[in-house]
Amino acid sequence: MKLFVIKIGGNVIDNPETLHAFLDTFAQLPFHKILIHGGGKIATQVAEKLQITTTMVEGRRITDQPMLDVATMVYGGLVNKNIVALLQQRGSNAIGLTGADAGVIRAKKRPIKEIDYGFVGDIEEVSGLQLFLDNGLVPIIAPLSFDAEHGTMLNTNADTMASAVAVALSNDFDVSLVYCFEKKGVLSNPNDEASVIAAIDPGSYTKLKAAGVVNKGMIPKLDNAFEALQKGVSVVNICEASQLKAVAMNSGVGTSLSL
Amino acid sequence: MKLFVIKIGGNVIDNPETLHAFLDTFAQLPFHKILIHGGGKIATQVAEKLQITTTMVEGRRITDQPMLDVATMVYGGLVNKNIVALLQQRGSNAIGLTGADAGVIRAKKRPIKEIDYGFVGDIEEVSGLQLFLDNGLVPIIAPLSFDAEHGTMLNTNADTMASAVAVALSNDFDVSLVYCFEKKGVLSNPNDEASVIAAIDPGSYTKLKAAGVVNKGMIPKLDNAFEALQKGVSVVNICEASQLKAVAMNSGVGTSLSL
Repeated sequence: MKLFVIKIGGNVIDNPETLHAFLDTFAQLPFHKILIHGGGKIATQVAEKLQITTTMVEGRRITDQPMLDVATMVYGGLVNKNIVALLQQRGSNAIGLTGADAGVIRAKKRPIKEIDYGFVGDIEEVSGLQLFLDNGLVPIIAPLSFDAEHGTMLNTNADTMASAVAVALSNDFDVSLVYCFEKKGVLSNPNDEASVIAAIDPGSYTKLKAAGVVNKGMIPKLDNAFEALQKGVSVVNICEASQLKAVAMNSGVGTSLSL
Repeated sequence: MKLFVIKIGGNVIDNPETLHAFLDTFAQLPFHKILIHGGGKIATQVAEKLQITTTMVEGRRITDQPMLDVATMVYGGLVNKNIVALLQQRGSNAIGLTGADAGVIRAKKRPIKEIDYGFVGDIEEVSGLQLFLDNGLVPIIAPLSFDAEHGTMLNTNADTMASAVAVALSNDFDVSLVYCFEKKGVLSNPNDEASVIAAIDPGSYTKLKAAGVVNKGMIPKLDNAFEALQKGVSVVNICEASQLKAVAMNSGVGTSLSL
């Protein structure tokens, strides 16, 4: 049975028009589906207003206790519930989840090495999502995992979360993992939106990295994607949110990754 | 089959020690159970820091859009997810829900009469909770319902929510509704914690009201309770959070309401 695991980032969430259009399409996809959302700018804005300082180390947000609270409020509350309410309005029986809910995404606090990332979770186990899918529910997952031993929420990268969820369900479903981001796919020329690379396999990925075509920010996303493929996901697609319908209908848009 | 629907208010949530002790007991109750929580002071504190003014009319909070966002963040996010994580730590398979999740609590925005309450919901339908109970999950419900037609969250009084949930499940379960609040029960003398009235029925309720023993704040709570009993709930108990275990074991603490 086909399952779409779809990740949307801040660029979709921050713009109500883009978000509503995306949710129109998402609600109508005639497959089992799971949405994983990022946080968008709202978390940063709320943190600023609450006078909580965002510490960044090497492009990564450090999650101290006040920042974890903001993430739990904004990702787990405001963003997640608004998406759920908008999907319910569109006839999709959405249910908002963090990793703690029904214990679906268990993690451990990242060990301190050079950097102490704070309350950031490295995923250990994804389980229990099938119950929701089997009962016609559509899981909407916020980028928060949790540590069952300490009873605490943990901030977790939404891309990583999407990949872990897709892998966990690949035993029972034919899983397509779709990363919606701000470009129409992986571009061979970052300044030319028409230069979408239609397909990448491990061989061409190595070449693209060697030639510097795949840039720094894309590497973790693509590494994640190829790891998911190796662990049983059928196909990974990277595209713009507006292209979701075409991707689901297999119309050859975006960048398609396979082994 | 026995089901406990338990409501805790701000006095439990605002104090970590009280909350942890309560959750220790709650996790161990050997019955089907649902927890409905209020918001506590955190919502007001967050609203203040975000420089959102809380408008009160006749003791009721008016929920404008910024305040609805705060309620969604704090009740649906921070408070709800922290309780879920703490229960998971205690081996209870908790799942956090607002009314929008799986569409469990549908409402309509309260019509504007003398007062425009803003985004406040009057509950129309409670459904779908049995799926969670049947699968060993423990619903933890934030005081937020939703309007499916407009795709919006709605602020809803937690006492009312608990009563509506208890009534909706009384066809399928033998439901005990427990309101945990700051006193050991309904007191005949508000200054004497030892003056708990052990039992109230509709006849004695009328007398207590006429004599002015039941004060203003208690009347809506008790009205709610008697309405729930008339609609099929087996028993309602009003007690302190620390007494939950004794109440569940039928040890005759708190105030017990019945028809």
